[in-house]
Amino acid sequence: MPATDPDCLFCKIIAGEIPSTIVDSDDRTLAFMDINPATRGHALVVPRNHSADLLSVDPEDLAATAVAAQRLAGTAKEALGADGVNLLNCCGEVAWQTVFHFHMHVIPRYTDDAVRLPWIPAPGDTDEISAAGQQIKEQS
Amino acid sequence: MPATDPDCLFCKIIAGEIPSTIVDSDDRTLAFMDINPATRGHALVVPRNHSADLLSVDPEDLAATAVAAQRLAGTAKEALGADGVNLLNCCGEVAWQTVFHFHMHVIPRYTDDAVRLPWIPAPGDTDEISAAGQQIKEQS
Repeated sequence: MPATDPDCLFCKIIAGEIPSTIVDSDDRTLAFMDINPATRGHALVVPRNHSADLLSVDPEDLAATAVAAQRLAGTAKEALGADGVNLLNCCGEVAWQTVFHFHMHVIPRYTDDAVRLPWIPAPGDTDEISAAGQQIKEQS
Repeated sequence: MPATDPDCLFCKIIAGEIPSTIVDSDDRTLAFMDINPATRGHALVVPRNHSADLLSVDPEDLAATAVAAQRLAGTAKEALGADGVNLLNCCGEVAWQTVFHFHMHVIPRYTDDAVRLPWIPAPGDTDEISAAGQQIKEQS
């Protein structure tokens, strides 16, 4: 059983208590679509074990998260026709962290998407997020 | 001997052919100050083995880079009094990659630093970069 925090949103997603569009999974990590996406296909990779942030995550969980993010970046590029990818970790409120369960953003990039970070988090179109997630899942 | 590309700027830094302010080092990785810093203490972690980007880096080198970035984030926070940290990888020109040797940015963050990404890369003050690097080295 992973280490969990009963008040943590991502722990609840990992436990299946809150629905999400899961796009990748392994023994140590889970990846699901960000509901406030910066671009089409924006997903988050989290370790199953709870830790607040980059400074406290177990190094083996961190390594597994990075490798899962790489895998997802490749899949998203293939599945969605992205032209590039950004990985982003935000550690601390001042660095734009909002959920205190360590996570890595995988942000597919497209020519002329005009993304600037931080993007302004705003709810995306639920159907569109699911459709992008489905495309990623089908490729992986 | 690491895999190298004779035309790669970062391979030349790793080989010591181009000077840099090195702040962290292990068997697989090297970290040095970014000369176009977004904030005080902005450093880059690279695997010693050459690969162009996130999609082609060996997963073990990627994992080692992530763990080295975590170590450096903690050190920079302690050494420089940062309030948070961002890790950023840019994969592909459209995602702001400019040097095609896989690297992770470690960007210390400070309250009210007003950083937006992409920052506009511009040469920093060399003495100031060295001073920040020295503070990090002394802590590590």
